[in-house]
Amino acid sequence: MAGRAARGPFRFPVRVRFGDVDHAGIVYYPRYFEYFHTAFEEMFAEGYRHIVDDRSIGFPAVRVECDFHAPLRFGDLVEVEVTCDRTGRSSVTLHYRAVKDGVATAEARITCAAVDMKVLRSIPIPDDLRARFESLRPV
Amino acid sequence: MAGRAARGPFRFPVRVRFGDVDHAGIVYYPRYFEYFHTAFEEMFAEGYRHIVDDRSIGFPAVRVECDFHAPLRFGDLVEVEVTCDRTGRSSVTLHYRAVKDGVATAEARITCAAVDMKVLRSIPIPDDLRARFESLRPV
Amino acid sequence: MAGRAARGPFRFPVRVRFGDVDHAGIVYYPRYFEYFHTAFEEMFAEGYRHIVDDRSIGFPAVRVECDFHAPLRFGDLVEVEVTCDRTGRSSVTLHYRAVKDGVATAEARITCAAVDMKVLRSIPIPDDLRARFESLRPV
Amino acid sequence: MAGRAARGPFRFPVRVRFGDVDHAGIVYYPRYFEYFHTAFEEMFAEGYRHIVDDRSIGFPAVRVECDFHAPLRFGDLVEVEVTCDRTGRSSVTLHYRAVKDGVATAEARITCAAVDMKVLRSIPIPDDLRARFESLRPV
Repeated sequence: MAGRAARGPFRFPVRVRFGDVDHAGIVYYPRYFEYFHTAFEEMFAEGYRHIVDDRSIGFPAVRVECDFHAPLRFGDLVEVEVTCDRTGRSSVTLHYRAVKDGVATAEARITCAAVDMKVLRSIPIPDDLRARFESLRPV
Repeated sequence: MAGRAARGPFRFPVRVRFGDVDHAGIVYYPRYFEYFHTAFEEMFAEGYRHIVDDRSIGFPAVRVECDFHAPLRFGDLVEVEVTCDRTGRSSVTLHYRAVKDGVATAEARITCAAVDMKVLRSIPIPDDLRARFESLRPV
Repeated sequence: MAGRAARGPFRFPVRVRFGDVDHAGIVYYPRYFEYFHTAFEEMFAEGYRHIVDDRSIGFPAVRVECDFHAPLRFGDLVEVEVTCDRTGRSSVTLHYRAVKDGVATAEARITCAAVDMKVLRSIPIPDDLRARFESLRPV
Repeated sequence: MAGRAARGPFRFPVRVRFGDVDHAGIVYYPRYFEYFHTAFEEMFAEGYRHIVDDRSIGFPAVRVECDFHAPLRFGDLVEVEVTCDRTGRSSVTLHYRAVKDGVATAEARITCAAVDMKVLRSIPIPDDLRARFESLRPV
């Protein structure tokens, strides 16, 4: 948990599961976005559930860009590394890398809007969450 | 849509998708339950959404039994056949068969409780829905 | 099936399923890529399985860009519309729109490489498949 | 890893993810089988990948029974507990419990057949794997 408070990239390990692969025998690419979302959920010390349920704040994706460099296979251990590209008034762009054996197998930039979950309307990013995002600086 | 009103099994076709298989190259078995749920959603003429959202009634699974007889592969076309085994005051047991080329590749009995979706509490099955279930008689 | 042979966009309907939504009550964004992949699988008259299994050709994604304009909810009927942006020697960029009630709720550009599935190595796109992609012209 | 060698139940923690819930706001029941499969993959000290890829042995499900006692929600931490009910010559029945705060929210008996993965034909369970299953005794 120490990693959550420290400045710098947030890293979270993900194991490729038996059902994550596709008919080509490699990870079905939509699963990468599940891996990235898992890291997003884990990077808040207080838990993303607390933010969503108690504060009614969510971060739906509004834009995704992703490059796939190398396939992943069943049993691979991937470290998802999250850094912050940019914070705006009401959106944030995070940079995700799925790293296996020191090499990025996929790399994404995902922009999320801060919204009031009750009405799905855009809101300014609260200061504490902005600080969390901005702490995710590349080293 | 004619099939929805008629008495007898309800049938709904499902195509095995590229991401439905697992590292063994056959359908990952949890996907069968997604296929069965898809057929459940389709078998109400007015739509399951209407029942859930407008009437606040849902049917969460409380018990599942499933036998897997033969593997399914990418591209296979499966017909999910639904019949009714039993209706109780507040639960229903449906019988699902995943049929490929006339042969059941998997067969399940799934018991669902009728619940008030706002509080997830058991309720009696409303008469019109009970009638729908009871119309699903084997032929 | 007539749509498969005709020139112009390929369109395939997808229903949002009970398990496709997330804790925000809207479609979990990785599912959109499953919807897009489903349309991709369906757009070959001979079936994508035939191409993969009999000809050993596959089209893994190498780059994805997607903008999400509006949320989708359980029960929504979406038409996935596929057109071709660009064909190269060994890759193709398709343009996907998830259309609900005439409005694009999400729009993606997905670049796939043609590969020999046995070794996952890049190959030139075969002429018949190139013709299929190039027939997907916007109208 | 010590737990893998010890006799007694195997336990593996699973966090309920944002995309694991359904339109009812609770875990979509097919996901439970993914949680159980994850625990199965983790319970071999040498890794299930090694067994599948290097020894060409797999354990597809042939029968599933599952009772759902209480709903799970986004963010819940579940411990999947695995014990062995029965080993036969070429199949094994494992007992899975999804435990939250000391209470089983779901409980399954899943029978898997040992198969030669190249041909999906039944084989006797190898001695070392039988020993692993039989070590999973309730305490």
